[in-house]
Amino acid sequence: MPETLPLRQFLNLIYLRDSMKILVAEKCGFCHGVRNAISVAEKTLSHIKDGNPVYSLGPIIHNKNEVERLAKIGLKTVDSVKKIRSGTVLIRSHGAAPKQIARLKEKGLNIVDATCVLVKRVQHIAEELEKDGYQVVIIGDEDHPEVQAVTGCAREVVVIADENDLHKLPMNTRLGIVCQTTQSPEHFGRVLGAIGKCSFSELKVINTLCKEAIIRQESAVQLCRQVDIMFVLGGLESANTLRLAELCKKYNSQTFHLQNWNELDKSILPGKNIAGVTAGASTPDWIIGEFVKNLEAF
Amino acid sequence: MPETLPLRQFLNLIYLRDSMKILVAEKCGFCHGVRNAISVAEKTLSHIKDGNPVYSLGPIIHNKNEVERLAKIGLKTVDSVKKIRSGTVLIRSHGAAPKQIARLKEKGLNIVDATCVLVKRVQHIAEELEKDGYQVVIIGDEDHPEVQAVTGCAREVVVIADENDLHKLPMNTRLGIVCQTTQSPEHFGRVLGAIGKCSFSELKVINTLCKEAIIRQESAVQLCRQVDIMFVLGGLESANTLRLAELCKKYNSQTFHLQNWNELDKSILPGKNIAGVTAGASTPDWIIGEFVKNLEAF
Repeated sequence: MPETLPLRQFLNLIYLRDSMKILVAEKCGFCHGVRNAISVAEKTLSHIKDGNPVYSLGPIIHNKNEVERLAKIGLKTVDSVKKIRSGTVLIRSHGAAPKQIARLKEKGLNIVDATCVLVKRVQHIAEELEKDGYQVVIIGDEDHPEVQAVTGCAREVVVIADENDLHKLPMNTRLGIVCQTTQSPEHFGRVLGAIGKCSFSELKVINTLCKEAIIRQESAVQLCRQVDIMFVLGGLESANTLRLAELCKKYNSQTFHLQNWNELDKSILPGKNIAGVTAGASTPDWIIGEFVKNLEAF
Repeated sequence: MPETLPLRQFLNLIYLRDSMKILVAEKCGFCHGVRNAISVAEKTLSHIKDGNPVYSLGPIIHNKNEVERLAKIGLKTVDSVKKIRSGTVLIRSHGAAPKQIARLKEKGLNIVDATCVLVKRVQHIAEELEKDGYQVVIIGDEDHPEVQAVTGCAREVVVIADENDLHKLPMNTRLGIVCQTTQSPEHFGRVLGAIGKCSFSELKVINTLCKEAIIRQESAVQLCRQVDIMFVLGGLESANTLRLAELCKKYNSQTFHLQNWNELDKSILPGKNIAGVTAGASTPDWIIGEFVKNLEAF
Protein backbone atom coordinates (compact mmCIF):
# COMPACT_ATOMS: atom_id res chain seq x y z
CA MET A 1 0.00 0.00 0.00
CA PRO A 2 1.42 3.44 -0.90
CA GLU A 3 2.03 5.94 1.90
CA THR A 4 -1.04 7.94 2.79
CA LEU A 5 0.03 11.53 3.41
CA PRO A 6 1.86 12.38 0.16
CA LEU A 7 -1.02 10.77 -1.74
CA ARG A 8 -3.62 12.85 0.09
CA GLN A 9 -1.66 15.98 -0.83
CA PHE A 10 -1.39 15.22 -4.49
CA LEU A 11 -5.03 14.21 -4.77
CA ASN A 12 -6.19 17.77 -4.35
CA LEU A 13 -4.09 19.02 -7.25
CA ILE A 14 -5.35 19.45 -10.77
CA TYR A 15 -3.62 17.18 -13.26
CA LEU A 16 -2.87 18.66 -16.63
CA ARG A 17 -1.84 16.34 -19.38
CA ASP A 18 -1.99 16.75 -23.13
CA SER A 19 -4.50 13.97 -23.23
CA MET A 20 -6.70 14.38 -20.17
CA LYS A 21 -7.29 16.74 -17.28
CA ILE A 22 -8.09 14.92 -14.02
CA LEU A 23 -9.97 16.67 -11.25
CA VAL A 24 -10.32 15.07 -7.84
CA ALA A 25 -13.25 16.13 -5.63
CA GLU A 26 -12.14 18.51 -2.90
CA LYS A 27 -13.79 16.29 -0.30
CA CYS A 28 -13.80 12.55 -0.84
CA GLY A 29 -12.63 9.28 0.65
CA PHE A 30 -12.41 8.27 4.31
CA CYS A 31 -14.63 10.15 6.74
CA HIS A 32 -13.67 10.57 10.43
CA GLY A 33 -15.74 7.56 11.50
CA VAL A 34 -14.15 5.19 9.00
CA ARG A 35 -10.65 6.57 9.53
CA ASN A 36 -11.10 6.04 13.27
CA ALA A 37 -12.38 2.46 12.82
CA ILE A 38 -9.41 1.53 10.63
CA SER A 39 -6.97 3.15 13.02
CA VAL A 40 -8.58 1.37 16.02
CA ALA A 41 -8.39 -1.94 14.11
CA GLU A 42 -4.70 -1.43 13.26
CA LYS A 43 -3.85 -0.45 16.85
CA THR A 44 -5.78 -3.41 18.27
CA LEU A 45 -4.07 -5.83 15.89
CA SER A 46 -0.62 -4.45 16.72
CA HIS A 47 -1.16 -4.64 20.51
CA ILE A 48 -2.68 -8.09 20.60
CA LYS A 49 -0.62 -11.03 21.79
CA ASP A 50 0.10 -13.85 19.35
CA GLY A 51 -2.62 -16.41 19.04
CA ASN A 52 -5.27 -14.14 20.51
CA PRO A 53 -7.77 -13.61 17.68
CA VAL A 54 -9.27 -10.24 16.71
CA TYR A 55 -12.71 -10.33 15.10
CA SER A 56 -14.77 -7.75 13.32
CA LEU A 57 -18.52 -8.28 13.68
CA GLY A 58 -19.39 -7.82 9.99
CA PRO A 59 -16.97 -6.24 7.47
CA ILE A 60 -15.26 -3.34 9.25
CA ILE A 61 -16.08 -1.07 6.30
CA HIS A 62 -17.90 -1.63 3.02
CA ASN A 63 -14.70 -1.90 1.01
CA LYS A 64 -13.54 -5.31 -0.14
CA ASN A 65 -9.95 -4.25 -0.83
CA GLU A 66 -9.47 -2.66 2.58
CA VAL A 67 -11.10 -5.61 4.32
CA GLU A 68 -8.67 -7.91 2.47
CA ARG A 69 -5.72 -5.73 3.49
CA LEU A 70 -6.74 -5.88 7.17
CA ALA A 71 -7.41 -9.64 6.91
CA LYS A 72 -3.78 -10.08 5.84
CA ILE A 73 -2.59 -8.45 9.07
CA GLY A 74 -4.93 -10.59 11.17
CA LEU A 75 -8.48 -9.16 11.31
CA LYS A 76 -11.04 -11.96 11.07
CA THR A 77 -14.45 -10.94 9.76
CA VAL A 78 -17.42 -12.94 11.07
CA ASP A 79 -21.12 -12.40 10.43
CA SER A 80 -22.49 -13.53 13.78
CA VAL A 81 -21.73 -13.53 17.49
CA LYS A 82 -22.10 -17.33 17.50
CA LYS A 83 -18.91 -17.73 15.52
CA ILE A 84 -16.76 -16.04 18.17
CA ARG A 85 -15.48 -18.12 21.08
CA SER A 86 -12.64 -16.07 22.55
CA GLY A 87 -10.44 -13.05 21.97
CA THR A 88 -11.23 -9.46 20.99
CA VAL A 89 -14.24 -8.22 19.03
CA LEU A 90 -14.19 -4.97 17.14
CA ILE A 91 -17.52 -3.16 16.78
CA ARG A 92 -17.35 -1.56 13.36
CA SER A 93 -18.19 2.09 12.56
CA HIS A 94 -21.83 1.15 11.73
CA GLY A 95 -22.28 0.01 15.34
CA ALA A 96 -24.05 -3.04 16.76
CA ALA A 97 -27.40 -3.54 18.46
CA PRO A 98 -27.39 -3.49 22.30
CA LYS A 99 -28.52 -7.15 22.28
CA GLN A 100 -25.47 -8.19 20.26
CA ILE A 101 -23.15 -6.29 22.60
CA ALA A 102 -24.83 -7.93 25.61
CA ARG A 103 -24.24 -11.36 24.08
CA LEU A 104 -20.56 -10.52 23.46
CA LYS A 105 -20.25 -9.46 27.11
CA GLU A 106 -21.94 -12.66 28.30
CA LYS A 107 -19.30 -14.61 26.41
CA GLY A 108 -16.58 -12.71 28.31
CA LEU A 109 -15.09 -11.32 25.09
CA ASN A 110 -12.88 -8.23 24.98
CA ILE A 111 -14.93 -5.56 23.17
CA VAL A 112 -13.31 -2.69 21.29
CA ASP A 113 -15.94 -0.23 20.17
CA ALA A 114 -15.19 1.66 16.96
CA THR A 115 -18.77 2.81 16.37
CA CYS A 116 -18.82 6.20 14.64
CA VAL A 117 -19.82 8.92 17.15
CA LEU A 118 -22.58 10.09 14.83
CA VAL A 119 -24.04 6.58 14.60
CA LYS A 120 -23.82 6.28 18.38
CA ARG A 121 -25.78 9.53 18.58
CA VAL A 122 -28.58 8.10 16.38
CA GLN A 123 -28.80 5.09 18.71
CA HIS A 124 -29.03 7.31 21.82
CA ILE A 125 -31.65 9.53 20.19
CA ALA A 126 -33.75 6.48 19.24
CA GLU A 127 -33.64 5.33 22.88
CA GLU A 128 -34.57 8.80 24.17
CA LEU A 129 -37.42 9.19 21.68
CA GLU A 130 -38.87 5.89 22.78
CA LYS A 131 -38.54 6.88 26.46
CA ASP A 132 -40.45 10.07 25.64
CA GLY A 133 -43.31 8.03 24.22
CA TYR A 134 -42.65 8.47 20.51
CA GLN A 135 -42.99 5.69 17.93
CA VAL A 136 -39.40 5.59 16.64
CA VAL A 137 -39.02 5.88 12.86
CA ILE A 138 -35.76 5.72 10.93
CA ILE A 139 -35.52 6.89 7.34
CA GLY A 140 -32.99 4.52 5.78
CA ASP A 141 -32.30 1.11 4.23
CA GLU A 142 -33.61 -1.82 6.24
CA ASP A 143 -30.63 -4.00 5.25
CA HIS A 144 -27.94 -1.53 6.21
CA PRO A 145 -26.00 -2.47 9.39
CA GLU A 146 -26.29 1.07 10.80
CA VAL A 147 -30.08 0.90 10.49
CA GLN A 148 -30.18 -2.62 11.90
CA ALA A 149 -28.17 -1.51 14.93
CA VAL A 150 -30.53 1.43 15.50
CA THR A 151 -33.61 -0.79 15.21
CA GLY A 152 -32.10 -2.83 18.04
CA CYS A 153 -32.07 0.23 20.32
CA ALA A 154 -35.85 0.55 20.72
CA ARG A 155 -38.69 -1.95 21.10
CA GLU A 156 -40.22 -1.43 17.72
CA VAL A 157 -38.64 0.80 15.11
CA VAL A 158 -40.38 1.53 11.80
CA VAL A 159 -37.89 1.67 8.92
CA ILE A 160 -38.97 3.88 6.02
CA ALA A 161 -36.80 3.55 2.91
CA ASP A 162 -39.03 5.72 0.74
CA GLU A 163 -42.63 6.67 -0.04
CA ASN A 164 -43.56 3.02 -0.64
CA ASP A 165 -43.07 2.24 3.05
CA LEU A 166 -45.49 4.86 4.40
CA HIS A 167 -48.15 2.20 5.02
CA LYS A 168 -45.96 0.92 7.89
CA LEU A 169 -46.62 4.10 9.90
CA PRO A 170 -49.26 3.92 12.63
CA MET A 171 -51.99 6.58 12.28
CA ASN A 172 -52.53 9.60 14.55
CA THR A 173 -49.40 8.91 16.56
CA ARG A 174 -46.44 10.84 17.94
CA LEU A 175 -43.62 9.88 15.60
CA GLY A 176 -39.97 10.34 16.63
CA ILE A 177 -37.92 10.41 13.43
CA VAL A 178 -34.21 9.97 12.80
CA CYS A 179 -32.30 9.34 9.59
CA GLN A 180 -29.53 6.98 8.52
CA THR A 181 -26.43 9.22 8.73
CA THR A 182 -25.39 8.78 5.09
CA GLN A 183 -28.71 9.61 3.41
CA SER A 184 -28.88 12.86 1.42
CA PRO A 185 -30.77 15.93 2.71
CA GLU A 186 -32.79 15.72 -0.49
CA HIS A 187 -34.01 12.21 0.27
CA PHE A 188 -34.53 13.00 3.97
CA GLY A 189 -36.64 16.06 3.08
CA ARG A 190 -38.63 14.21 0.42
CA VAL A 191 -39.58 11.37 2.79
CA LEU A 192 -40.33 13.84 5.60
CA GLY A 193 -42.66 15.66 3.23
CA ALA A 194 -44.44 12.41 2.43
CA ILE A 195 -44.77 11.58 6.14
CA GLY A 196 -46.08 15.12 6.72
CA LYS A 197 -48.99 14.37 4.39
CA CYS A 198 -49.96 11.32 6.46
CA SER A 199 -52.15 11.34 9.50
CA PHE A 200 -49.96 12.04 12.56
CA SER A 201 -50.44 13.90 15.80
CA GLU A 202 -46.84 15.02 16.31
CA LEU A 203 -43.49 14.63 14.60
CA LYS A 204 -40.21 15.06 16.41
CA VAL A 205 -37.47 14.94 13.82
CA ILE A 206 -33.83 14.94 14.83
CA ASN A 207 -31.43 15.72 12.01
CA THR A 208 -28.95 12.87 12.24
CA LEU A 209 -27.44 13.33 8.77
CA CYS A 210 -23.65 13.30 8.66
CA LYS A 211 -22.46 16.77 7.58
CA GLU A 212 -19.30 15.27 6.07
CA ALA A 213 -21.41 13.04 3.83
CA ILE A 214 -23.40 16.12 2.72
CA ILE A 215 -20.22 18.08 1.94
CA ARG A 216 -18.91 15.12 -0.09
CA GLN A 217 -22.17 14.97 -2.03
CA GLU A 218 -22.07 18.72 -2.75
CA SER A 219 -18.42 18.53 -3.73
CA ALA A 220 -19.13 15.61 -6.10
CA VAL A 221 -22.11 17.34 -7.71
CA GLN A 222 -20.04 20.48 -8.27
CA LEU A 223 -17.27 18.44 -9.86
CA CYS A 224 -19.33 16.23 -12.10
CA ARG A 225 -20.87 19.30 -13.72
CA GLN A 226 -17.41 20.30 -14.99
CA VAL A 227 -16.21 17.00 -16.42
CA ASP A 228 -16.78 14.75 -19.45
CA ILE A 229 -16.58 11.59 -17.40
CA MET A 230 -16.99 10.98 -13.69
CA PHE A 231 -15.64 8.13 -11.58
CA VAL A 232 -17.09 7.25 -8.20
CA LEU A 233 -14.76 4.90 -6.37
CA GLY A 234 -15.95 2.64 -3.58
CA GLY A 235 -17.51 -0.62 -2.46
CA LEU A 236 -20.55 -1.87 -4.31
CA GLU A 237 -22.30 -2.39 -0.96
CA SER A 238 -21.30 0.95 0.49
CA ALA A 239 -24.51 2.95 1.03
CA ASN A 240 -22.80 6.33 0.90
CA THR A 241 -20.87 5.43 -2.28
CA LEU A 242 -24.05 4.19 -3.96
CA ARG A 243 -25.79 7.43 -3.01
CA LEU A 244 -22.83 9.45 -4.33
CA ALA A 245 -22.92 7.57 -7.64
CA GLU A 246 -26.68 7.96 -7.91
CA LEU A 247 -26.38 11.72 -7.30
CA CYS A 248 -23.52 12.13 -9.81
CA LYS A 249 -25.47 10.22 -12.46
CA LYS A 250 -28.23 12.81 -12.09
CA TYR A 251 -25.85 15.60 -13.06
CA ASN A 252 -23.54 13.69 -15.39
CA SER A 253 -24.82 10.67 -17.30
CA GLN A 254 -21.21 9.56 -17.93
CA THR A 255 -20.78 8.46 -14.31
CA PHE A 256 -19.12 5.14 -13.47
CA HIS A 257 -19.11 3.45 -10.06
CA LEU A 258 -15.99 1.28 -9.72
CA GLN A 259 -14.28 -0.46 -6.86
CA ASN A 260 -10.79 0.14 -8.25
CA TRP A 261 -8.66 0.76 -11.34
CA ASN A 262 -8.83 -2.88 -12.47
CA GLU A 263 -12.57 -2.64 -12.96
CA LEU A 264 -12.29 0.22 -15.46
CA ASP A 265 -13.16 -0.62 -19.06
CA LYS A 266 -10.43 1.48 -20.69
CA SER A 267 -12.28 1.65 -24.02
CA ILE A 268 -14.55 4.36 -22.61
CA LEU A 269 -11.67 6.83 -22.09
CA PRO A 270 -10.71 7.98 -25.62
CA GLY A 271 -12.28 11.30 -26.56
CA LYS A 272 -12.78 12.41 -22.96
CA ASN A 273 -10.92 15.62 -22.10
CA ILE A 274 -11.72 16.11 -18.43
CA ALA A 275 -12.25 13.33 -15.90
CA GLY A 276 -13.58 13.76 -12.37
CA VAL A 277 -12.83 11.44 -9.48
CA THR A 278 -14.64 11.13 -6.17
CA ALA A 279 -14.86 8.34 -3.62
CA GLY A 280 -17.11 7.08 -0.87
CA ALA A 281 -16.41 7.51 2.83
CA SER A 282 -15.14 3.93 3.01
CA THR A 283 -12.71 4.17 0.10
CA PRO A 284 -9.07 4.29 1.24
CA ASP A 285 -6.68 6.89 -0.13
CA TRP A 286 -4.50 4.22 -1.68
CA ILE A 287 -7.35 3.12 -3.97
CA ILE A 288 -7.99 6.73 -5.05
CA GLY A 289 -4.24 7.38 -5.49
CA GLU A 290 -3.71 4.24 -7.54
CA PHE A 291 -6.70 5.11 -9.74
CA VAL A 292 -5.56 8.68 -10.39
CA LYS A 293 -1.95 7.60 -11.07
CA ASN A 294 -3.05 4.96 -13.56
CA LEU A 295 -5.51 7.30 -15.25
CA GLU A 296 -2.79 9.89 -15.53
CA ALA A 297 -0.37 7.37 -17.03
CA PHE A 298 -2.94 5.91 -19.44
CA MET B 1 -83.05 34.05 6.67
CA PRO B 2 -84.63 30.64 6.01
CA GLU B 3 -84.80 28.15 8.86
CA THR B 4 -81.63 26.18 9.30
CA LEU B 5 -82.55 22.60 10.13
CA PRO B 6 -84.82 21.66 7.25
CA LEU B 7 -82.32 23.24 4.88
CA ARG B 8 -79.44 21.20 6.32
CA GLN B 9 -81.50 18.06 5.81
CA PHE B 10 -82.40 18.72 2.24
CA LEU B 11 -78.85 19.72 1.33
CA ASN B 12 -77.64 16.18 1.68
CA LEU B 13 -80.17 14.89 -0.82
CA ILE B 14 -79.53 14.34 -4.47
CA TYR B 15 -81.63 16.53 -6.72
CA LEU B 16 -82.89 14.96 -9.85
CA ARG B 17 -84.41 17.15 -12.50
CA ASP B 18 -84.89 16.60 -16.20
CA SER B 19 -82.48 19.39 -16.85
CA MET B 20 -79.79 19.08 -14.23
CA LYS B 21 -78.72 16.81 -11.39
CA ILE B 22 -77.42 18.72 -8.36
CA LEU B 23 -75.12 17.02 -5.89
CA VAL B 24 -74.24 18.75 -2.62
CA ALA B 25 -70.99 17.74 -0.90
CA GLU B 26 -71.66 15.43 2.04
CA LYS B 27 -69.62 17.72 4.29
CA CYS B 28 -69.69 21.45 3.64
CA GLY B 29 -70.62 24.77 5.21
CA PHE B 30 -70.27 25.88 8.83
CA CYS B 31 -67.68 24.06 10.93
CA HIS B 32 -68.05 23.76 14.73
CA GLY B 33 -65.83 26.80 15.37
CA VAL B 34 -67.80 29.09 13.09
CA ARG B 35 -71.18 27.75 14.22
CA ASN B 36 -70.12 28.39 17.81
CA ALA B 37 -68.93 31.94 17.06
CA ILE B 38 -72.22 32.83 15.35
CA SER B 39 -74.24 31.30 18.16
CA VAL B 40 -72.18 33.16 20.80
CA ALA B 41 -72.68 36.40 18.85
CA GLU B 42 -76.44 35.87 18.61
CA LYS B 43 -76.73 35.02 22.32
CA THR B 44 -74.59 38.01 23.34
CA LEU B 45 -76.68 40.36 21.20
CA SER B 46 -79.95 39.02 22.61
CA HIS B 47 -78.81 39.33 26.25
CA ILE B 48 -77.29 42.78 26.03
CA LYS B 49 -79.13 45.75 27.44
CA ASP B 50 -80.26 48.52 25.11
CA GLY B 51 -77.58 51.06 24.28
CA ASN B 52 -74.72 48.82 25.34
CA PRO B 53 -72.75 48.19 22.15
CA VAL B 54 -71.42 44.77 21.04
CA TYR B 55 -68.27 44.79 18.92
CA SER B 56 -66.50 42.15 16.89
CA LEU B 57 -62.75 42.68 16.63
CA GLY B 58 -62.48 42.09 12.88
CA PRO B 59 -65.28 40.46 10.81
CA ILE B 60 -66.68 37.61 12.92
CA ILE B 61 -66.35 35.24 9.95
CA HIS B 62 -65.09 35.72 6.41
CA ASN B 63 -68.55 35.94 4.93
CA LYS B 64 -69.89 39.32 3.86
CA ASN B 65 -73.54 38.25 3.79
CA GLU B 66 -73.47 36.77 7.28
CA VAL B 67 -71.58 39.77 8.67
CA GLU B 68 -74.28 42.03 7.15
CA ARG B 69 -77.01 39.89 8.68
CA LEU B 70 -75.43 40.15 12.15
CA ALA B 71 -74.81 43.89 11.68
CA LYS B 72 -78.56 44.31 11.18
CA ILE B 73 -79.21 42.80 14.61
CA GLY B 74 -76.55 44.98 16.27
CA LEU B 75 -73.04 43.54 15.87
CA LYS B 76 -70.54 46.33 15.13
CA THR B 77 -67.38 45.24 13.35
CA VAL B 78 -64.23 47.26 14.10
CA ASP B 79 -60.69 46.68 12.90
CA SER B 80 -58.79 47.90 15.96
CA VAL B 81 -58.97 48.01 19.75
CA LYS B 82 -58.60 51.81 19.58
CA LYS B 83 -62.06 52.18 18.13
CA ILE B 84 -63.77 50.57 21.13
CA ARG B 85 -64.57 52.76 24.15
CA SER B 86 -67.11 50.76 26.09
CA GLY B 87 -69.38 47.74 25.96
CA THR B 88 -68.77 44.12 24.98
CA VAL B 89 -66.12 42.80 22.61
CA LEU B 90 -66.48 39.50 20.84
CA ILE B 91 -63.24 37.64 20.00
CA ARG B 92 -63.97 35.94 16.69
CA SER B 93 -63.24 32.28 15.89
CA HIS B 94 -59.80 33.17 14.45
CA GLY B 95 -58.77 34.41 17.90
CA ALA B 96 -56.79 37.49 18.93
CA ALA B 97 -53.21 38.02 20.06
CA PRO B 98 -52.62 38.08 23.86
CA LYS B 99 -51.49 41.72 23.57
CA GLN B 100 -54.82 42.73 22.04
CA ILE B 101 -56.74 40.92 24.75
CA ALA B 102 -54.59 42.62 27.41
CA ARG B 103 -55.43 46.02 25.91
CA LEU B 104 -59.15 45.17 25.91
CA LYS B 105 -58.87 44.23 29.58
CA GLU B 106 -57.01 47.45 30.41
CA LYS B 107 -59.92 49.36 28.91
CA GLY B 108 -62.30 47.53 31.25
CA LEU B 109 -64.30 46.07 28.37
CA ASN B 110 -66.49 43.00 28.70
CA ILE B 111 -64.78 40.25 26.67
CA VAL B 112 -66.67 37.34 25.13
CA ASP B 113 -64.25 34.82 23.68
CA ALA B 114 -65.51 32.84 20.67
CA THR B 115 -62.08 31.66 19.57
CA CYS B 116 -62.29 28.22 17.95
CA VAL B 117 -60.90 25.58 20.32
CA LEU B 118 -58.55 24.32 17.62
CA VAL B 119 -57.16 27.81 17.06
CA LYS B 120 -56.74 28.22 20.82
CA ARG B 121 -54.79 24.96 20.78
CA VAL B 122 -52.37 26.31 18.13
CA GLN B 123 -51.79 29.39 20.31
CA HIS B 124 -51.04 27.25 23.39
CA ILE B 125 -48.72 24.98 21.42
CA ALA B 126 -46.80 27.99 20.06
CA GLU B 127 -46.32 29.25 23.63
CA GLU B 128 -45.19 25.81 24.83
CA LEU B 129 -42.78 25.32 21.94
CA GLU B 130 -41.17 28.67 22.70
CA LYS B 131 -40.90 27.77 26.39
CA ASP B 132 -39.13 24.54 25.37
CA GLY B 133 -36.53 26.53 23.44
CA TYR B 134 -37.82 26.01 19.91
CA GLN B 135 -37.92 28.70 17.23
CA VAL B 136 -41.66 28.79 16.55
CA VAL B 137 -42.65 28.41 12.89
CA ILE B 138 -46.20 28.52 11.51
CA ILE B 139 -47.02 27.26 8.04
CA GLY B 140 -49.75 29.61 6.87
CA ASP B 141 -50.69 32.96 5.36
CA GLU B 142 -49.07 35.96 7.05
CA ASP B 143 -52.15 38.11 6.50
CA HIS B 144 -54.67 35.68 7.95
CA PRO B 145 -56.06 36.71 11.37
CA GLU B 146 -55.54 33.21 12.81
CA VAL B 147 -51.85 33.34 11.89
CA GLN B 148 -51.53 36.91 13.15
CA ALA B 149 -53.01 35.89 16.51
CA VAL B 150 -50.59 32.95 16.77
CA THR B 151 -47.59 35.15 15.93
CA GLY B 152 -48.63 37.28 18.90
CA CYS B 153 -48.29 34.28 21.24
CA ALA B 154 -44.50 33.94 21.03
CA ARG B 155 -41.65 36.46 20.88
CA GLU B 156 -40.67 35.84 17.31
CA VAL B 157 -42.66 33.54 15.04
CA VAL B 158 -41.49 32.72 11.52
CA VAL B 159 -44.41 32.51 9.07
CA ILE B 160 -43.82 30.22 6.10
CA ALA B 161 -46.47 30.49 3.39
CA ASP B 162 -44.63 28.24 0.92
CA GLU B 163 -41.20 27.27 -0.40
CA ASN B 164 -40.39 30.91 -1.25
CA ASP B 165 -40.26 31.78 2.46
CA LEU B 166 -37.65 29.19 3.46
CA HIS B 167 -34.93 31.87 3.57
CA LYS B 168 -36.63 33.21 6.71
CA LEU B 169 -35.64 30.11 8.69
CA PRO B 170 -32.59 30.34 10.94
CA MET B 171 -29.95 27.66 10.21
CA ASN B 172 -29.04 24.70 12.43
CA THR B 173 -31.81 25.45 14.91
CA ARG B 174 -34.49 23.56 16.79
CA LEU B 175 -37.67 24.46 14.93
CA GLY B 176 -41.09 24.05 16.54
CA ILE B 177 -43.64 23.88 13.74
CA VAL B 178 -47.40 24.33 13.72
CA CYS B 179 -49.81 24.88 10.86
CA GLN B 180 -52.72 27.23 10.19
CA THR B 181 -55.73 25.00 10.96
CA THR B 182 -57.35 25.36 7.53
CA GLN B 183 -54.35 24.46 5.35
CA SER B 184 -54.50 21.15 3.44
CA PRO B 185 -52.44 18.12 4.49
CA GLU B 186 -50.96 18.22 0.99
CA HIS B 187 -49.64 21.76 1.45
CA PHE B 188 -48.52 21.06 5.03
CA GLY B 189 -46.58 17.99 3.90
CA ARG B 190 -45.05 19.75 0.90
CA VAL B 191 -43.75 22.65 2.99
CA LEU B 192 -42.53 20.26 5.71
CA GLY B 193 -40.61 18.36 3.05
CA ALA B 194 -38.99 21.59 1.87
CA ILE B 195 -38.08 22.52 5.46
CA GLY B 196 -36.66 19.00 5.90
CA LYS B 197 -34.18 19.67 3.10
CA CYS B 198 -32.89 22.78 4.91
CA SER B 199 -30.22 22.82 7.55
CA PHE B 200 -31.90 22.21 10.94
CA SER B 201 -30.89 20.44 14.10
CA GLU B 202 -34.37 19.35 15.23
CA LEU B 203 -37.95 19.69 14.09
CA LYS B 204 -40.89 19.32 16.42
CA VAL B 205 -44.02 19.37 14.32
CA ILE B 206 -47.45 19.40 15.90
CA ASN B 207 -50.27 18.57 13.56
CA THR B 208 -52.68 21.43 14.09
CA LEU B 209 -54.74 20.89 10.96
CA CYS B 210 -58.49 20.93 11.45
CA LYS B 211 -59.83 17.45 10.67
CA GLU B 212 -63.19 18.90 9.67
CA ALA B 213 -61.48 21.06 7.05
CA ILE B 214 -59.69 17.96 5.72
CA ILE B 215 -62.94 15.98 5.53
CA ARG B 216 -64.55 18.88 3.66
CA GLN B 217 -61.64 18.96 1.21
CA GLU B 218 -61.84 15.20 0.62
CA SER B 219 -65.59 15.36 0.25
CA ALA B 220 -65.27 18.20 -2.29
CA VAL B 221 -62.59 16.42 -4.31
CA GLN B 222 -64.71 13.28 -4.43
CA LEU B 223 -67.70 15.27 -5.62
CA CYS B 224 -66.04 17.42 -8.23
CA ARG B 225 -64.76 14.31 -9.98
CA GLN B 226 -68.38 13.28 -10.64
CA VAL B 227 -69.78 16.54 -11.97
CA ASP B 228 -69.69 18.68 -15.11
CA ILE B 229 -69.58 21.92 -13.17
CA MET B 230 -68.58 22.62 -9.58
CA PHE B 231 -69.60 25.54 -7.36
CA VAL B 232 -67.63 26.51 -4.28
CA LEU B 233 -69.64 28.94 -2.17
CA GLY B 234 -68.01 31.27 0.33
CA GLY B 235 -66.30 34.55 1.11
CA LEU B 236 -63.59 35.74 -1.26
CA GLU B 237 -61.34 36.36 1.75
CA SER B 238 -62.10 33.05 3.46
CA ALA B 239 -58.84 31.05 3.52
CA ASN B 240 -60.54 27.67 3.76
CA THR B 241 -62.97 28.49 0.92
CA LEU B 242 -60.10 29.69 -1.29
CA ARG B 243 -58.21 26.45 -0.55
CA LEU B 244 -61.34 24.42 -1.30
CA ALA B 245 -61.78 26.19 -4.64
CA GLU B 246 -58.11 25.76 -5.50
CA LEU B 247 -58.30 22.06 -4.74
CA CYS B 248 -61.52 21.59 -6.75
CA LYS B 249 -60.02 23.41 -9.72
CA LYS B 250 -57.22 20.81 -9.72
CA TYR B 251 -59.73 18.00 -10.21
CA ASN B 252 -62.38 19.85 -12.20
CA SER B 253 -61.42 22.81 -14.38
CA GLN B 254 -65.09 23.91 -14.46
CA THR B 255 -64.95 25.12 -10.84
CA PHE B 256 -66.45 28.47 -9.87
CA HIS B 257 -65.92 30.24 -6.55
CA LEU B 258 -68.95 32.45 -5.79
CA GLN B 259 -70.20 34.28 -2.73
CA ASN B 260 -73.86 33.63 -3.53
CA TRP B 261 -76.46 32.94 -6.24
CA ASN B 262 -76.47 36.56 -7.47
CA GLU B 263 -72.85 36.29 -8.55
CA LEU B 264 -73.52 33.36 -10.89
CA ASP B 265 -73.22 34.07 -14.61
CA LYS B 266 -76.18 31.96 -15.72
CA SER B 267 -74.89 31.66 -19.28
CA ILE B 268 -72.43 28.97 -18.18
CA LEU B 269 -75.19 26.56 -17.14
CA PRO B 270 -76.71 25.29 -20.43
CA GLY B 271 -75.28 21.94 -21.51
CA LYS B 272 -74.23 20.94 -18.01
CA ASN B 273 -75.93 17.76 -16.77
CA ILE B 274 -74.53 17.37 -13.26
CA ALA B 275 -73.60 20.24 -10.94
CA GLY B 276 -71.73 19.90 -7.66
CA VAL B 277 -72.02 22.31 -4.75
CA THR B 278 -69.72 22.71 -1.79
CA ALA B 279 -69.11 25.58 0.62
CA GLY B 280 -66.42 26.90 2.94
CA ALA B 281 -66.56 26.58 6.73
CA SER B 282 -67.78 30.17 7.01
CA THR B 283 -70.63 29.86 4.53
CA PRO B 284 -74.03 29.80 6.23
CA ASP B 285 -76.61 27.16 5.34
CA TRP B 286 -79.03 29.79 4.07
CA ILE B 287 -76.58 30.82 1.33
CA ILE B 288 -76.10 27.19 0.25
CA GLY B 289 -79.85 26.53 0.45
CA GLU B 290 -80.70 29.60 -1.58
CA PHE B 291 -78.13 28.66 -4.21
CA VAL B 292 -79.34 25.08 -4.57
CA LYS B 293 -83.01 26.16 -4.69
CA ASN B 294 -82.33 28.71 -7.41
CA LEU B 295 -80.17 26.33 -9.40
CA GLU B 296 -82.90 23.74 -9.16
CA ALA B 297 -85.53 26.20 -10.36
CA PHE B 298 -83.38 27.57 -13.19
